[in-house]
Amino acid sequence: MEKPPAQMTVIGISKPGGPEVLLPETRPVPVPAPGELLVKVEAAGVNRPDVAQRSGSYPPPPGASDLPGLEIAGVVVALGAGASKHKLGDKVMSLVAGGGYAPYCIAQDAQAMTVPPQLTMLEAGAVPETLMTVWHNVFERGRLQPGETLLVHGGSSGIGTMAIQLAKALGSKVIVTVGSKEKANACLKLGADHAINYKTEDFVAAVKEATGGTGVNVILDMVGGDYVERNYDAAAVDGRIVQIAVLGGAKATVNVTRIMVKRLIHTGSTLRPRSNADKAAMVAAIEAKVMPLFREGRIKPLIDSTFPLQKAADAHRRMESSEHIGKIVLSL
Amino acid sequence: MEKPPAQMTVIGISKPGGPEVLLPETRPVPVPAPGELLVKVEAAGVNRPDVAQRSGSYPPPPGASDLPGLEIAGVVVALGAGASKHKLGDKVMSLVAGGGYAPYCIAQDAQAMTVPPQLTMLEAGAVPETLMTVWHNVFERGRLQPGETLLVHGGSSGIGTMAIQLAKALGSKVIVTVGSKEKANACLKLGADHAINYKTEDFVAAVKEATGGTGVNVILDMVGGDYVERNYDAAAVDGRIVQIAVLGGAKATVNVTRIMVKRLIHTGSTLRPRSNADKAAMVAAIEAKVMPLFREGRIKPLIDSTFPLQKAADAHRRMESSEHIGKIVLSL
Repeated sequence: MEKPPAQMTVIGISKPGGPEVLLPETRPVPVPAPGELLVKVEAAGVNRPDVAQRSGSYPPPPGASDLPGLEIAGVVVALGAGASKHKLGDKVMSLVAGGGYAPYCIAQDAQAMTVPPQLTMLEAGAVPETLMTVWHNVFERGRLQPGETLLVHGGSSGIGTMAIQLAKALGSKVIVTVGSKEKANACLKLGADHAINYKTEDFVAAVKEATGGTGVNVILDMVGGDYVERNYDAAAVDGRIVQIAVLGGAKATVNVTRIMVKRLIHTGSTLRPRSNADKAAMVAAIEAKVMPLFREGRIKPLIDSTFPLQKAADAHRRMESSEHIGKIVLSL
Repeated sequence: MEKPPAQMTVIGISKPGGPEVLLPETRPVPVPAPGELLVKVEAAGVNRPDVAQRSGSYPPPPGASDLPGLEIAGVVVALGAGASKHKLGDKVMSLVAGGGYAPYCIAQDAQAMTVPPQLTMLEAGAVPETLMTVWHNVFERGRLQPGETLLVHGGSSGIGTMAIQLAKALGSKVIVTVGSKEKANACLKLGADHAINYKTEDFVAAVKEATGGTGVNVILDMVGGDYVERNYDAAAVDGRIVQIAVLGGAKATVNVTRIMVKRLIHTGSTLRPRSNADKAAMVAAIEAKVMPLFREGRIKPLIDSTFPLQKAADAHRRMESSEHIGKIVLSL
């Protein structure tokens, strides 16, 4: 195996701002610490937090790379001391603490997953962040059960398209909200049972109608704002609402009586600040319960578009347009 | 055993209004249906929902007695078909679906608990509603663990004084908010580790100080309104906030980002509309895990005051004054 070079050309955030601040920089190739892998990156997924970090509103946590990029797929080219889950030459996909927009990136051995043969490396680079977000929030936090109904806001997003497939594969019904007929069709094609166009329909009324008045058991929400109280209305008794972003605004005015009367659970999480131990535990659960579904060909990330790493600014423009359906990926 | 009479004099709600609408009425003594007990009432606890029902804002659920009174203690004087948990002459305390302000009242056999010898019948009449509310919300819903810290708003209320004792007996730390020095002293005497006077201190700052900046693991809140966002601030990472009333207002404006960043759980419940099966399950858990603490003398309800049944209006005036510390009980 070729020895990694000393230097590499990455895409960095030259200053907080628009997509144009994403510029090439020369950086040293990192050296894996104990328990870490150095991965030669073939694909890096683009995520909303990358955009927030670029614009200056979401600084990287202490100790993390200042480079954008939270998920990668590639080949293991160096092992830190004690890294034993993977070996040199393995094709892996992994959540990373930052630094994915680069030819070489550090991953935690315990957080890296073997790329299933059914996925291309480009597809694999689109998996870790959305899969871990959906798994933890919908299944661990929201405790979605077979036979229950999940409502996914932003059904055509990277997270939404993964949530549809995973919930369907595990035996639940799925309702999504989307902003266009094209996005609705994409969600239905992935297996969603019902798609609501939030621009032309009131999603609370539409959810009630689609569930015979009962409401939904779990809601995965990335909108916040005035969706919060409407989520309380759309939820069934004992419903769980899981907040993973507040793209529509952080402030919400709610009638808390609804929480009591319906015995709702409103919770949420962010993935990046979780400890390595927490992330490794999520990966272990995913390897046991979800990776077989990938190997059976029942789940495959929906790729919206691919950009070469040096066109990362265009990838961000695409994400900020909100026209994308599925994942945006950088190729190397 | 004496046969129950056909008629009895109860306290009814003559029309929605103030305490003066609580007036004597003649009603038939109820006959227990299958699985029910007829209890000759010796004590009936007074609760906030009785006040809400009297004022017209909390109608009884379908099928329930229209008479006020949600908990009683007394002697079993008749058994419905199949009632086998208790027998004639047993001293029981029980949550009831209504009708507690009366000499005879129906209880569900599965929801009635044997009065432990350490309690007087007056004390026993003050136990079921608060105990089931605290048990379910703090321990089943809020999952308070030994070593964790519980914050109880309204620490000197009937529910608050029970929550202090139960959480302390099960190994947690307890912080309360109260509105006077006298109430603070009562809570500390019951075992609370720290009492915050919300009239003179900001409870968020005081909680942070008392927990070394960490915040509390579980919050039992009956206030709502502007306490909701302040609860989010006072909670620790992975904290659970359980809403059992909104005495300070149902509307809350919150920053939902706090739920995500701290991975909070905001939930809540109301007891009265729960199914008989749900209530029986709570009673079974309480009999296994809490009744031993009563029999060891480690928990005893704090009685604020006792009124004869015919003075129920005065009992309601006392509760609405919010000057009470502990439970208000009607004696028969």
